[in-house]
Amino acid sequence: MQCFKTIEYLKNSYGERISQIADQRRSGKKLVGTFCLFVPDEIIFAAGADRVILCGGKNDTVSIAEQYLPRNICPLVKSSFGSIVNNGCSGIRSCSHFSMVDMIVAENTCDSKKKMYELLGEYVPTYVIDLPQKPDTPEALKYFLSELEKFRGVMEQLTGNKVTTEGLRQEIRSSNETRRLFHRLYELRKEDPSPISGSQVLKILQKQYFLSPDKLKEYLRMLIEEVESVEPGQVRKPRIMVSGCPMPGGNTKVTDIIESRGGVIVAEESCTGTRSFWYLVDEDKDPMTALAERYIKIPCSCMSPNDRRIDNILELAREFRVDGVIHYTLQFCHGYNIEKQKVQKALKEAGIPMLSIETDYSDSDVEQIGLRVDAFMEMIS
Amino acid sequence: MQCFKTIEYLKNSYGERISQIADQRRSGKKLVGTFCLFVPDEIIFAAGADRVILCGGKNDTVSIAEQYLPRNICPLVKSSFGSIVNNGCSGIRSCSHFSMVDMIVAENTCDSKKKMYELLGEYVPTYVIDLPQKPDTPEALKYFLSELEKFRGVMEQLTGNKVTTEGLRQEIRSSNETRRLFHRLYELRKEDPSPISGSQVLKILQKQYFLSPDKLKEYLRMLIEEVESVEPGQVRKPRIMVSGCPMPGGNTKVTDIIESRGGVIVAEESCTGTRSFWYLVDEDKDPMTALAERYIKIPCSCMSPNDRRIDNILELAREFRVDGVIHYTLQFCHGYNIEKQKVQKALKEAGIPMLSIETDYSDSDVEQIGLRVDAFMEMIS
Ligand code: SF4
Ligand code: SF4
Ligand code: SF4
Ligand code: SF4
Repeated sequence: MQCFKTIEYLKNSYGERISQIADQRRSGKKLVGTFCLFVPDEIIFAAGADRVILCGGKNDTVSIAEQYLPRNICPLVKSSFGSIVNNGCSGIRSCSHFSMVDMIVAENTCDSKKKMYELLGEYVPTYVIDLPQKPDTPEALKYFLSELEKFRGVMEQLTGNKVTTEGLRQEIRSSNETRRLFHRLYELRKEDPSPISGSQVLKILQKQYFLSPDKLKEYLRMLIEEVESVEPGQVRKPRIMVSGCPMPGGNTKVTDIIESRGGVIVAEESCTGTRSFWYLVDEDKDPMTALAERYIKIPCSCMSPNDRRIDNILELAREFRVDGVIHYTLQFCHGYNIEKQKVQKALKEAGIPMLSIETDYSDSDVEQIGLRVDAFMEMIS
Repeated sequence: MQCFKTIEYLKNSYGERISQIADQRRSGKKLVGTFCLFVPDEIIFAAGADRVILCGGKNDTVSIAEQYLPRNICPLVKSSFGSIVNNGCSGIRSCSHFSMVDMIVAENTCDSKKKMYELLGEYVPTYVIDLPQKPDTPEALKYFLSELEKFRGVMEQLTGNKVTTEGLRQEIRSSNETRRLFHRLYELRKEDPSPISGSQVLKILQKQYFLSPDKLKEYLRMLIEEVESVEPGQVRKPRIMVSGCPMPGGNTKVTDIIESRGGVIVAEESCTGTRSFWYLVDEDKDPMTALAERYIKIPCSCMSPNDRRIDNILELAREFRVDGVIHYTLQFCHGYNIEKQKVQKALKEAGIPMLSIETDYSDSDVEQIGLRVDAFMEMIS
C-alpha cells in the first residue's frame, strides 16, 4: 500500500496541537474534554472554547483505572479513566491533554461511562448531558433539545461568551464542511482496489476530535488530494467493513490484524468511522433544533430501537461493495455485544459474511484473532 | 429462627396464582409481564389488566439464553430471557407464567436489559417505556410523564378499557396500602434480635410482583400478625443490610449464605427490598404526575447522579442499626458494580463496615463466598 505524506504529518501532529492548546489556555481560552459523538462540538466552538477527545485507546492506563473501577468493564472506559486519574503522567506518556481540560462534558450513554463520569467529577469539573434512549419520538427530541439548551448555558458560563444563533450557524457550516470532506475521502475508498488502507484512514479518524477543526480540514484536503492521485492498483484484496465499538487513539489492534492478514478495510461503521460524519446538520433550520435532530440520530447501541444502525450497515456494505463484515466489540460492552445478534441476522439475510471479534486492548489474543481472521479471509476470498 | 405459617403458604402460592391467571385469561383479562420497578403497576391495574414479574432468578435457564446472548452479561438478564425463549418448558420447570403474558412492558434502564428487550420482541409483543437518566430536573420529569401517558394509551388499547383518573387514584391508594404494610413489616425488623430472618422476608419480597395485589396484602397482614407475636429473642446475631442488585424469585443464594454463616439480614436496599416500597405515591396530586414523580425517584444505579441511593443506604443503616453492609452485585452488572465505589466511600465515612460480593446464579462460588462472609462476621461481631 502506498504511503501518504499526510499520514506521516498526522502522526507528528500531537506536539504541535499540545503547544497550541497551551498557548490558548495562557490567553484564557477554555478547553473542554469530551468522550462521545453525542456532545455537539458546534456548541463548544460557538462559545469560543476549544475541545479535545478524552477517549483512551491505550492499554497502559487500564491498570491504573483498575485500582478504582471493576476489572470487568470495557477497556475504553478504563483507559480513559486511567489517563485522567494519572494526570501526573507517572511514567506513562501522552497524557498531557488529559490534564489540560477545564471541564469535561459527558453524556449518559452506556452504563459504564455513565457511572464512571460520577467518579470523574472528583478529579475534573464534569457536566453531564442526559440523553433519551428512544431516538424517534417528538418528546425525546424535545427533551434532548432542552438538555442541549442547558449545555449551551453551561458553555456560556464557562467561557463568559454568548453562544449566538449566528455563531452556531457558522460552526454548523464548518462542521458540515468537515463531514463533506470525510464523505469525499470515503468516496475514494469505493474504488476496487482501494487506494488507501484502513490503517491509514484510522489515523485521521482518531485525530478528528483531537485536532482543531481548521487543522483537521487541512489534513483532510491534503490527504484527499494525495489519494486522488494514486495510480489504480492491481492486486485485489478482500474488502472488509469493520462495524461496532470505537477505536480511540492508541488502539489500532484489530485494524492492524485485519490488514496484516491480507484484507483491506474500506469502511468503518463506528464512532471512529462513519457514525461521526455520515449525517449532516440541516443548515437552514433553527440551529439548536437542527443540532438536536442530527445528534439524536447517531446510531449508537445506547439507542433503542437502533434499526438506523442496521439499515446503515446494509447501506454501507452495498455502497462500499464489501466482501465481509468484521463485527468488533470491546470486551464487556454489553450494548454492541447484544446488538451484534441483530447485525448478524441482517447481514445473513443480505448474504454478507460476518466475523465477530470481542477483545480488549492487550496483546494477549492477537495471534488467536489473527488465525480467525485468516480463516474468514479464506472463506470470503 | 421461628417458622411462620405465612411463609409456608407463600411457598405454595405458585400453583394457585397460575390457576387464577389462567381463569382470568379465559374470561378475557389481559396479563402484562414486567421486569422492573420503573413500570408503574397502578397504570396496568387501572386498565383492568393483571401483572406478573418476569425477572428470572433461576440458574437453569441461563444456559438457554447463552445460545442467543453473550455469556458475559448479568445472570438476571440471561435467566429471564432463557425463561421466555424456553416457553415450551422443555424439561425446565416453573416457567408457565412466562408463557402466559399478552404483552411485555419493558423500560430503558441498563444496557443489557435495553438490548435484550429488542430481541424479546420477536417472541412476545414488547412495549418499552423510555426513562430519562438524570432524575432531578423538571424536563426529565416532563419527559417521563409523557412516556407514562403513552404507556397509559398502550394499556387502554391492550385491554379496551379506559384508564380513568378515579381508577388511577384507587390503584394508587391500593399500592400505597401495600407499601405501608411493607413498612410495618420492616419496622418489626428493627427489634434486636430481629424476630424474622432475611431469608423469610425475601420469600414475600420476591413474590410481591407475582401475586395479585389483594393476595399480597393478605399475606403481608398475616405475616405481620405472626411476627408481632414472636417472643423477644435472646441470641444476638450480627445485623446485616444487603445492598445492590435484585434477587428475583429462584435466587436466594447470597441471603442463604449470609444467614447460614450466623448473620441476620435486617434490611435489603434492593429492588427486592426497600426500593420497591420505601417511597409512597402522593394521593392528593394529579395521579399521573404523582406517579411520574414517585417512580422517577427510584434510586436505581441507572440514574445519574444517584445520590438518593447513597443517602438512603446511610438512612437505612442507621434506622436498622446494622453492624455491616454486604454489597451485592450480579456479575457483569456495570451500574451497581461501579456505583459500589461511592457506597463504600460513604459507608467508610460513616464508620460502617462493608463487604463486597460479586457473583452469578451458579453454585460454584458458594463455599468461597461463605469463607469471606465468615471473616466479615468475625470482624463485625
Ligand atoms: S459508541 Fe456510542 S457512546 Fe460510544 S462514543 Fe460512540 S456514540 Fe458515544
Ligand atoms: S465501547 Fe461500549 S462499553 Fe465501552 S464506552 Fe463505548 S459503548 Fe460504553
Ligand atoms: S435494579 Fe434498576 S433496572 Fe433493575 S429492577 Fe431495580 S429499578 Fe429496575
Ligand atoms: S442486575 Fe444490573 S445488569 Fe442485571 S438487569 Fe439489573 S441493572 Fe441490569
